[in-house]
Amino acid sequence: MRATPGPIDRFLADLHARLSGLTGGAPATYIPELGKADPALFGIAVAMVDGTLYTAGDAAHRFTIQSISKAFVYGHALDRLGREAVLRHVGVEPTGESFNSISLDEAHNRPFNPMVNAGAIATAELIEGDDPIARQAALAALMERYAGRRLDLDETVYHSEKATGHRNRAIAWMMLNSGMIKRAPEEVLDLYFRQCSLLVDARDLATMGATIANDGINPRTGARALAREHVPDVLTVMNMCGMYNYAGQWSYEIGLPAKSGVSGAILLVIPGQAGIAIYSPPIDANGNSVRGVAAAGEIADAFGLHIFGTHPNVRNAIRAEYRGDRLRSKRARRHADLALLAREGARIRVIEAQGALYFGSTERLIRRAGELAVQADWLIIDMRRVLSADIAACRLLAGLVETMRARGRTLVFAHLEDRGSLAALHAAVAAEAEAGTLAPGRETALEWCEDRLIALHGGGAPARAVAFADLDIVAGLSPAEIAEVAMVAVPLAFAAGEALAREGDEAALFFVLTEGSASIRLRAGGGPGRSIRLGSVGPGMSCGEMALIDRGRRSADIVADEAVRAFGFDIAGLESLGERHPRILIRIIANITRDLAERLRLANNEIRALER
Amino acid sequence: MRATPGPIDRFLADLHARLSGLTGGAPATYIPELGKADPALFGIAVAMVDGTLYTAGDAAHRFTIQSISKAFVYGHALDRLGREAVLRHVGVEPTGESFNSISLDEAHNRPFNPMVNAGAIATAELIEGDDPIARQAALAALMERYAGRRLDLDETVYHSEKATGHRNRAIAWMMLNSGMIKRAPEEVLDLYFRQCSLLVDARDLATMGATIANDGINPRTGARALAREHVPDVLTVMNMCGMYNYAGQWSYEIGLPAKSGVSGAILLVIPGQAGIAIYSPPIDANGNSVRGVAAAGEIADAFGLHIFGTHPNVRNAIRAEYRGDRLRSKRARRHADLALLAREGARIRVIEAQGALYFGSTERLIRRAGELAVQADWLIIDMRRVLSADIAACRLLAGLVETMRARGRTLVFAHLEDRGSLAALHAAVAAEAEAGTLAPGRETALEWCEDRLIALHGGGAPARAVAFADLDIVAGLSPAEIAEVAMVAVPLAFAAGEALAREGDEAALFFVLTEGSASIRLRAGGGPGRSIRLGSVGPGMSCGEMALIDRGRRSADIVADEAVRAFGFDIAGLESLGERHPRILIRIIANITRDLAERLRLANNEIRALER
Repeated sequence: MRATPGPIDRFLADLHARLSGLTGGAPATYIPELGKADPALFGIAVAMVDGTLYTAGDAAHRFTIQSISKAFVYGHALDRLGREAVLRHVGVEPTGESFNSISLDEAHNRPFNPMVNAGAIATAELIEGDDPIARQAALAALMERYAGRRLDLDETVYHSEKATGHRNRAIAWMMLNSGMIKRAPEEVLDLYFRQCSLLVDARDLATMGATIANDGINPRTGARALAREHVPDVLTVMNMCGMYNYAGQWSYEIGLPAKSGVSGAILLVIPGQAGIAIYSPPIDANGNSVRGVAAAGEIADAFGLHIFGTHPNVRNAIRAEYRGDRLRSKRARRHADLALLAREGARIRVIEAQGALYFGSTERLIRRAGELAVQADWLIIDMRRVLSADIAACRLLAGLVETMRARGRTLVFAHLEDRGSLAALHAAVAAEAEAGTLAPGRETALEWCEDRLIALHGGGAPARAVAFADLDIVAGLSPAEIAEVAMVAVPLAFAAGEALAREGDEAALFFVLTEGSASIRLRAGGGPGRSIRLGSVGPGMSCGEMALIDRGRRSADIVADEAVRAFGFDIAGLESLGERHPRILIRIIANITRDLAERLRLANNEIRALER
Repeated sequence: MRATPGPIDRFLADLHARLSGLTGGAPATYIPELGKADPALFGIAVAMVDGTLYTAGDAAHRFTIQSISKAFVYGHALDRLGREAVLRHVGVEPTGESFNSISLDEAHNRPFNPMVNAGAIATAELIEGDDPIARQAALAALMERYAGRRLDLDETVYHSEKATGHRNRAIAWMMLNSGMIKRAPEEVLDLYFRQCSLLVDARDLATMGATIANDGINPRTGARALAREHVPDVLTVMNMCGMYNYAGQWSYEIGLPAKSGVSGAILLVIPGQAGIAIYSPPIDANGNSVRGVAAAGEIADAFGLHIFGTHPNVRNAIRAEYRGDRLRSKRARRHADLALLAREGARIRVIEAQGALYFGSTERLIRRAGELAVQADWLIIDMRRVLSADIAACRLLAGLVETMRARGRTLVFAHLEDRGSLAALHAAVAAEAEAGTLAPGRETALEWCEDRLIALHGGGAPARAVAFADLDIVAGLSPAEIAEVAMVAVPLAFAAGEALAREGDEAALFFVLTEGSASIRLRAGGGPGRSIRLGSVGPGMSCGEMALIDRGRRSADIVADEAVRAFGFDIAGLESLGERHPRILIRIIANITRDLAERLRLANNEIRALER
């Protein structure tokens, strides 16, 4: 499938080659049929949570699943009856004893956990179905959901187990005696022997592990095998009890939820990432595959998989902070309002969050927000670079909205509503938020906060109209020359929201505003109506310079923010003016050049800020 | 400290109020002094990994640390003797038995684990020091590193324990009998009773937990209390064995490494995030604080803290992909080379990675790289938005370099060398990488790949010089008019790397290139020499238009990519030309306007791409 072995293939091939020479242990003999396994067999399979498989060695060799089935059947019991009911039948306490110990949790009248034989027998009794045939069918269907294919029964091993499983019989009778099981031991044991005798290869088993890692959904078939809510329960029990009386040492050295079987297989789950299956028949005194334990240790070390080996860095939550007197919206504003923003703009602050938001990282974010709110009245949290937000993030950020309101501060979220992966956070915050505080983008959020700051100071009244003679475009011209220019100008009016020009249209007119303001906007991806404001123009300012270039096309939308009055100039009119009065046209073009250069400078600053 | 209670303060206050009403359990009585504790006492403290504290209730009330000390002393033994040696003295297997069980791991001749009394006594014997006084001093120093202050001994409790600790005496004598300890039981026990009788409050204990969570460094003092490499070991033992014979149920329901003490305290560690301490004297039959278990459960639920409750999303690793025929470097290139890139550019691909890189997410990244390499010869991985890269990321990405080389492909990393948090990855990849494949930015990486693609097709020879008459700036002028323009042009030459202009300088000349190419660059943060290329100009093209505006300052550097020949125009020369020949100047300025507008359009497209 893959053209050349990649780093994971090479790692597994090398590991397999090295550990093939590892001797020690012997195939299990207490089930006579298992003792016949070839001790040289050694297969490894890694299944990612999208079903991709990496294998080495005898990954296609079939073997009986044995005790590894316990994890899947336990999950089935949880899905069927719920946690509380299942806990009445079987505990979750590790024991220092071996897998086939007969010791039972007398205090709670239940086996200690579902990974020792006693607990697995109790769990097998909980398989759904009104009669043995129905229960066998439910078992087969369950295992098929995990493996993505029907698993065959190894009749020989099944009969061998059935013929020789006297210790399990003793355990089952003890449990019936104390009421831990209710049905006839032989019938419960028959189902248990069947579940242990199902045939898998390392690829199947890795896929079954990937199904748990993938929140209970088989990545190859899309079938749900385990409810999302019970995934942590199954992983916890595997983690605490999956490796018998080696569980502690395993957790210490390898640190991944795992389950081993006496056929010589070990299944490991890397939550959210992969399932790993290793098969090699020789087992050690604890009942765990010798090469399996060694290989698992090397894999966990090489890739830093121990659950306590690494953790996220809470310091990553805040990417940058900005002050509203330095970072301003691109809304064109009156001189007095701009001066106000320069003076008071620090009352607006922006925090740019990033990465995964969970308890520790969100605590940083809300704490910093609280600190900034000592000075700031408006706080914007820009979520554009946030990748995920869990239940803690939802709770803490919704709580922050409340805290800020109690402090008389306004919290605005930018780029929250358009992010699918943050839908739960959006819902949590929206329930608390005031109108306007969920802004599509940082630009809109900044403008909203600036508008409120300006309004608070009695500013923000519409800018007065600019007389034709005061327009930037005619700067440096004499009154007589200005009158000449006015002759080729077309008076225009636009309602709020109306487009002066649209991206891609042929550029027919160059505009100079005398009243109101208009934004220059780029359409952006991520949903209808989303756009990026590149800048805005107000009275006295010009836009649409593409009209001055033959066959130019609009590179952005120009949209009226409010009622706009403007003059339009077409290239023919300007050219004829230039023929009659070259000096006038030189002046006009120089004025336009200055404006373009300034806008280019702003765009470059923006690129610099974004590239940081 | 904080002006208004924030979401975490409010949560803890509410939790404390509700659970204060919880009855059940009683203060421990087997140490008579503990039995005198007020059952109403209830304190909660959360210490973040930067030392920030959140508290509720009696968080300043002092109590003896009791068994919680076992975790810290175990870490000390690991730091002092190493894993292997410590494992010879005490195992890491959970038992189904209670904290004061006398049962020992006979097979390995050691106590089962360091969290039961037998194991803790064995561990206490491993405290550094040549005599009892030195060992007491080492213990005191150890606990001070964790707590950030000297801990007092509760003399009354110490003497009460010493007077009544007969069961521990029995355990110690049993251990001496089997050789599990070597020194006199009374002396080892004295140290053990002392470690249990140290006084802490919930704030201390939370800080001690935050020290473990913070990779072993006390966040308040900066002192290292536990080696980084032993943090997972201590957490594993807490996780498996910290809650006595309730460890399994605890792990199932709360799912965080923890340790409880019979004084009624529980310490939880959220790795990488926080330490949590809960104190309330009434304990249950398992020896765990009743309110402590209840509060821990609510905190873990509310903030999704169960270790298997959430996991990162491997799908987040790839933010975007680009093809080299659509995304091109801003290097000015000959027409033939541009046509080649349009035709063959898809042989260059860019993957933009993001977030945390670990096994599962890096597997996605390298797998996708392998898929793209079927078609592509050059692959750029842009690391600008990657927040962290662990050991698995280092191994897999270094391995990818090797795989790509074996397939005859070139892998280029952009934005890797300048990122402090990716230093390990940079080192791992640099060891494998060829010259040129670690590029400061995506722009440089793209240019490098384009150069190689062009060279492969025999292109890339220096563009021929452009005659003055063919310059863009004189487009549309007659030969006679062009001769007039040439009169005011100053011929210039620059060596490769030489600056034509520098950002911030007063703009004196406007340039038109006739040979070679120059880049327009913005200086960026993140290290000396880092810059962002905004664009580049080649023969026939112009730059430095700020010179046309009075008192304008350069908005960017203009740097020669190779040997450059150009003409410079100053504003006085152009103005005098304009007075003599207005039509010539109109044409020149219109040509410049077209160029500026085109650059503005490119800048806007870049902003749009970056804002995505």
